[in-house]
Amino acid sequence: MQSKINYPIIIETIGLLLMIEGMFMFLSLPFSIYYQQPDLSRILLFTPGYDFWPLVVSGAATFISGGTLFLIYRNAPKAMSKREGYIIVSLSWIIISFFGALPFFLGGMSGYSDAFFETMSGFTTTGATILQDIESVSEGLLFWRSLTHWIGGMGIIVLSLAILPILGIGGMSLFVAEVPGPTPDKLHPRITATAKRLWGIYVLLTLIETVFLMFGGMNLFDGLSHAFATMATGGFSTRNASIAAFSPYIQYVIIVFMVLAGTNFTLHYLALHGKLKEVFRNEEYKYYLIVLGLSSIIIGLVLFFNTDLPFEKAIRDSLFQVVSIVTTTGFITSDYLMWPGFLWMLIFLLMFTGGSAGSTGGGIKIMRQLLIFKNSFLELKRIIHPNAIIPVRFNGRAVPSNVIYNVMAFFVIYLIIFGISTLLMSLMGLDFETSIGSVAACLGNIGPGIGNVGPVDNYAAIPLAGKWFLSFLMVLGRLELFTVLIILSPAFWRQ
Amino acid sequence: MQSKINYPIIIETIGLLLMIEGMFMFLSLPFSIYYQQPDLSRILLFTPGYDFWPLVVSGAATFISGGTLFLIYRNAPKAMSKREGYIIVSLSWIIISFFGALPFFLGGMSGYSDAFFETMSGFTTTGATILQDIESVSEGLLFWRSLTHWIGGMGIIVLSLAILPILGIGGMSLFVAEVPGPTPDKLHPRITATAKRLWGIYVLLTLIETVFLMFGGMNLFDGLSHAFATMATGGFSTRNASIAAFSPYIQYVIIVFMVLAGTNFTLHYLALHGKLKEVFRNEEYKYYLIVLGLSSIIIGLVLFFNTDLPFEKAIRDSLFQVVSIVTTTGFITSDYLMWPGFLWMLIFLLMFTGGSAGSTGGGIKIMRQLLIFKNSFLELKRIIHPNAIIPVRFNGRAVPSNVIYNVMAFFVIYLIIFGISTLLMSLMGLDFETSIGSVAACLGNIGPGIGNVGPVDNYAAIPLAGKWFLSFLMVLGRLELFTVLIILSPAFWRQ
Repeated sequence: MQSKINYPIIIETIGLLLMIEGMFMFLSLPFSIYYQQPDLSRILLFTPGYDFWPLVVSGAATFISGGTLFLIYRNAPKAMSKREGYIIVSLSWIIISFFGALPFFLGGMSGYSDAFFETMSGFTTTGATILQDIESVSEGLLFWRSLTHWIGGMGIIVLSLAILPILGIGGMSLFVAEVPGPTPDKLHPRITATAKRLWGIYVLLTLIETVFLMFGGMNLFDGLSHAFATMATGGFSTRNASIAAFSPYIQYVIIVFMVLAGTNFTLHYLALHGKLKEVFRNEEYKYYLIVLGLSSIIIGLVLFFNTDLPFEKAIRDSLFQVVSIVTTTGFITSDYLMWPGFLWMLIFLLMFTGGSAGSTGGGIKIMRQLLIFKNSFLELKRIIHPNAIIPVRFNGRAVPSNVIYNVMAFFVIYLIIFGISTLLMSLMGLDFETSIGSVAACLGNIGPGIGNVGPVDNYAAIPLAGKWFLSFLMVLGRLELFTVLIILSPAFWRQ
Repeated sequence: MQSKINYPIIIETIGLLLMIEGMFMFLSLPFSIYYQQPDLSRILLFTPGYDFWPLVVSGAATFISGGTLFLIYRNAPKAMSKREGYIIVSLSWIIISFFGALPFFLGGMSGYSDAFFETMSGFTTTGATILQDIESVSEGLLFWRSLTHWIGGMGIIVLSLAILPILGIGGMSLFVAEVPGPTPDKLHPRITATAKRLWGIYVLLTLIETVFLMFGGMNLFDGLSHAFATMATGGFSTRNASIAAFSPYIQYVIIVFMVLAGTNFTLHYLALHGKLKEVFRNEEYKYYLIVLGLSSIIIGLVLFFNTDLPFEKAIRDSLFQVVSIVTTTGFITSDYLMWPGFLWMLIFLLMFTGGSAGSTGGGIKIMRQLLIFKNSFLELKRIIHPNAIIPVRFNGRAVPSNVIYNVMAFFVIYLIIFGISTLLMSLMGLDFETSIGSVAACLGNIGPGIGNVGPVDNYAAIPLAGKWFLSFLMVLGRLELFTVLIILSPAFWRQ
């Protein structure tokens, strides 16, 4: 572990990722051409608000930069330890966002900082936006914006179900019970196999959702964009009103797919292989459904009895917002800040739930909460019976104490970062609610928060330093804290 | 442990405590007589605002009730296990508050709920008040109010340094290293010995502070009242303006004694025996002083550069409020809610610090924070070196993992209770800041919070159900959560 860091393999991998990113950028071109009906004058000039050339130039620059790195370092020694893993994971999200911001920057977005914030928000599947009028942005750029979600979601699934367990991060090893133990020398083939299996499900679900959305009247552009944002638990919409702009049918479709996106993808794999019993025996899944159901019912009933909303609308609004926040998607059909105070405070608390481990959802994660709750309440039993050994059980098995330690540490560090970050945001002049709202929403990869970054607001008015800091929080939260913190710790760099 | 509960010994003990409480009530009579110069008509009638008869009747009722219970059960079998311990500790605080509220109730306070809230706030050394005009209340009652702090403080010292470690609560066993391990059959003599030793220090410090305060111009009544409230980290003052009503000299005296009151009393004992080296080697003490110093300097400098306060006043205001909040005293010399937002948010975060373990301070406690922080950051090392065993070290010794588990569980349960309670308070119609402020201040035994229960406000406007609920939070926080939660858990009552 403490051998020399193999930098060439790091650069080679990131080069490869940039090449892939560049190719993805070109996927937006058909929409750019279709919607803009380009004429010669516009193609020749970098007209703001027109996205053909920005996409082409960005795609080419990204592909060529990546290709150059890859070519130079393609003969890198393939030996990769956990150390290189931490660096690649952390760096790749940052570097990919730097390049991913190019289309927005060249396409006329308000400065590079805003473009970077939007891109990081996309790749981390946060969905916080600085756009004040989304509908004025051209389709090609919006499609790239939605694609960043989808690419980020792909990265997260593989990260959480194949890479992080090997790296020993965040107690995630609990989730790959069916995968054999860490064998760093076989890192590549294992990750590749897992990736293929899970990406198949991810692509399949995205396509099915697109069909359902188009069946409800969306065109291909809107259907794909929203399916990308749903399956990645991202939250970017193509409309200013988010999902409130669409029919109840579409809202229900998105609710269903948000729930699926916030589910551990291993369970989808099991379900596809007919092992439904195992799926419904999964404790995290049960707890996840209970949290969603219970919160939705409580909020729905309070809304129904305290507003003049019809019953179906009250339940739908409640269900949509609860699912959107818990899965950390961040789509909106109703401004929860206009609800009775008790309800939006409940929504705020749900921001500390997060999706299931092994899903595309961010935040603390249901699995960790469950382990923490269990362990805390078992402590009462341990005090009453001080000589008994009372382990936490999860899915019928005793959880090793090092996993409990890890999960607890995650929770504590999450809250410490939340507290300090809130202070820093307030130092930039934000009020109390906006400070805690923006931090909770970005660290948890949710998108909308409370205060001035609520569901019908955006992040445009956040000071520049705040945007960079929130971008950092997004990647910190997205990479399960430890991945980034380890790199920032002196112990990591000591030989 | 799972034998039959020895109820007679529980009742006998509580009877004894009530007798002591009754006698303490009579201690207020000299002040009642001196300040009211009673005449016959007032003595014969229960004149509201006049406190002679309320004190006499309450004292007699409490003493006689306690005495009756004690006499009936004085032959109770002396066998006492941890089980009886949990019940006695939890019940005694509640029953003593029920009786302690009598003087206020009979003395004309706005209803029994208010009287109970004020008393529980006193005994738990919280210092949250429902009084809107403290100076209109007669001296006898105010003295009893301050005495509830002081009695509560006596209880807490013995509880945290002698009783809880034996009961295995909250990782407190770390602090009684010099005391031999649990020997339940020798519970009584050990607790008595510890109590005597520590109460001596408590009484001594209280007297010294009184002298210093009187030297600064306070009369005996004000001097004793404020010394009681300081040494118990309570926070009840006899003035509407709290300590802002007094000179800078008095403010500095109170700062010093708040710091002393928030220090582990074992350290005072060591210091008195000349073992100063051990005191300053104590990690919790160092961390405590660093938190106080650093926060005071930051806030003081920001205040100085952002307001027109003179330097000394800015530092003094900062120091006073920081020490008051961290030690969970709750005295006030400046309305921190009028400070720049960043500063009062820092103050709010400090509400989650708490005094030292083994002090009269409440809250999460410095010791727990230190262990949690250490363990969380060691987790980074553990991930980097997955095969190394890296224990948390405290005062040079490895901390057993069951203590870490316990401390982590405490922290998590504290936050869960904080979250749920905030929701419940908002359900009663309180706004966001008042909800989180009142819960943070009562669960942490601080007193002033944020929102409408800020430093220059009071708890009078909290709905009735809220007052009872906050009273429950005070005792829950004061008794280190577990003591109360264990009694509420079914496992405790199962044979």
